[in-house]
Amino acid sequence: MNKKITITDLAETLGTTPGTVSRALNNHPAISDAMKKKVHALADKLHYKRNQIASSLRLGKSYTIGVLIPSADINFFGSVVHGIESVANENGYRILLFQTNEGYKSEMEGLEALLSAHVDGVLVSIAKETRDYGHFTAARDIGMPLVFFDRAKEGLNISSVVIDDFNGAFLATEHLIAQGYQKIAHIGGQQHIKAFSDRFNGYKAALKKHKLPFKKQWIFDGDVSIEAGKEAIAYFLKQKESPDAVFAVEDYSALGAMKELKSRKISVPEAFGVFGFANELFAEHITPSLSSVDQQTIMMGKEAMSLLLSIIDAKKGQPACKSIILNPVLCTRESSQKLSNYQSI
Amino acid sequence: MNKKITITDLAETLGTTPGTVSRALNNHPAISDAMKKKVHALADKLHYKRNQIASSLRLGKSYTIGVLIPSADINFFGSVVHGIESVANENGYRILLFQTNEGYKSEMEGLEALLSAHVDGVLVSIAKETRDYGHFTAARDIGMPLVFFDRAKEGLNISSVVIDDFNGAFLATEHLIAQGYQKIAHIGGQQHIKAFSDRFNGYKAALKKHKLPFKKQWIFDGDVSIEAGKEAIAYFLKQKESPDAVFAVEDYSALGAMKELKSRKISVPEAFGVFGFANELFAEHITPSLSSVDQQTIMMGKEAMSLLLSIIDAKKGQPACKSIILNPVLCTRESSQKLSNYQSI
Repeated sequence: MNKKITITDLAETLGTTPGTVSRALNNHPAISDAMKKKVHALADKLHYKRNQIASSLRLGKSYTIGVLIPSADINFFGSVVHGIESVANENGYRILLFQTNEGYKSEMEGLEALLSAHVDGVLVSIAKETRDYGHFTAARDIGMPLVFFDRAKEGLNISSVVIDDFNGAFLATEHLIAQGYQKIAHIGGQQHIKAFSDRFNGYKAALKKHKLPFKKQWIFDGDVSIEAGKEAIAYFLKQKESPDAVFAVEDYSALGAMKELKSRKISVPEAFGVFGFANELFAEHITPSLSSVDQQTIMMGKEAMSLLLSIIDAKKGQPACKSIILNPVLCTRESSQKLSNYQSI
Repeated sequence: MNKKITITDLAETLGTTPGTVSRALNNHPAISDAMKKKVHALADKLHYKRNQIASSLRLGKSYTIGVLIPSADINFFGSVVHGIESVANENGYRILLFQTNEGYKSEMEGLEALLSAHVDGVLVSIAKETRDYGHFTAARDIGMPLVFFDRAKEGLNISSVVIDDFNGAFLATEHLIAQGYQKIAHIGGQQHIKAFSDRFNGYKAALKKHKLPFKKQWIFDGDVSIEAGKEAIAYFLKQKESPDAVFAVEDYSALGAMKELKSRKISVPEAFGVFGFANELFAEHITPSLSSVDQQTIMMGKEAMSLLLSIIDAKKGQPACKSIILNPVLCTRESSQKLSNYQSI
């Protein structure tokens, strides 16, 4: 007796994806007539049974991946999603997005909506509000392939792709020091988020290595917003000793800091250096342009999607949990370059 | 015999939404314990049968809405989605997004993915590449509630919410004229997209009203990108007679124009005025800040979602097709204000 022919067999023979074969067999309008002809001809030749199709569709895969992102507004996530899409499309998958707006309940809603939509796997960047991870472990326990990207939680036995936030912050702070700034402040984010506490620790480590002072009054706990950046500068300038530069945990805080410095006629970078994190689209367009840490967004998306595919395609249960850590890249621009002979990247 | 109790009856009695009741009956974690108690108590009191629940879930609604957007990267769409979400959440619906990246095939894929996910309705902003609308009419014909927003196609008997692009362009051009610019060029977008041709026509109408010349060599057909804006300025400055201002069909083209003018040391707004369209987030942060036309994004999202809900909730088939046209709002900033006594909005 012959081995039962599957959609994957047809796809391999034709050098295309199972998703394309499945849609060709269902006369989906997105598939070219030429491909439909080829697929149907091969299906006939191999006696692939038409009634298998319905059951493979019913029991099988949707070739749809869900992505939970905090906000589609933020260029960072948009860019990661492009990386996810490029690998997804190459493999015949399509992407449904759900934005949590950083809310815990919304994140649970979104995960439920994606599971109800019969996705084959979910990529997640955890909302800021989330401090209970039961919805993720529940999804993991029913065998739903999951990968965290950018904002991950350790100890849940869920794979992740993140950048080395500690090192990015360390390099940014070292750059400020190399530019001659001596009193470097920090605008932080919510410290229960690992990416933000890692950046804070990277900042501290760079100060320590170069024997520069760490002062509590030069730390401002912000909420990752333009407003927080403005408030931080107002707070720093009220201190007995003012800092002469700031490393902000992300670009919106850095933007707020620059706006406040501008409104107080304190010149950047001459009198005050500013360094952000995330390399948001606006960073290169504002004046002075904002130095920032690029998070390799496209690569992050590609790695996360590839990792998810390896879990989906694993034959025997979930493969071992894997953590991929990407290296950040410094983008030094006008806001931190006090030394005129410094070469911009 | 009593009338059969429905989830909607329970929701109305409790002053909440059917989605909340449905999820409360299913012990969904997003619903508070207090609400679950109230719902279960009322269900018991009215003898709402537990076995009705499964069937109402199986046959009934998913309380999920699909949104097809060209790109989640563009702040405009992100902002519209926030408007959509605010009305959706008030009514117990959640949102799944699919980004088409302006592709026709991708748009068909996305619509199919959303229909497969059993959404109760779809909001659509049409991709730039799309010139065949069969997938939308097919969805309409199977009774799927659909509403276009921002980018609509007339003549398909599908409801829409758009802004008055003609008037926005007319007002922006009039503003440039009032500032003393006499030779106003235009960087256009793909003219098969109604929003872009409407803006072109609004620009022409303002010139005509004020008896200013319309010259073919002052029109640049762009593709709505920073690069197009740069190329447009290079093109305009090669003409025998150069323009002294430009109205760009959207902000990325305007940004490119400003970058090119800056690199050629032509001062904005003194020597050259620039006006964009869409009021992207970066517009107020660049130097000089960019004048633009605000498209009432939040309102657009709210109106589109409300219109979709009215179609979903209609008792007898689809209600008559409805077109809502919103008024744009001028945001005049530094890039167009040659007259120092002009009052900024």
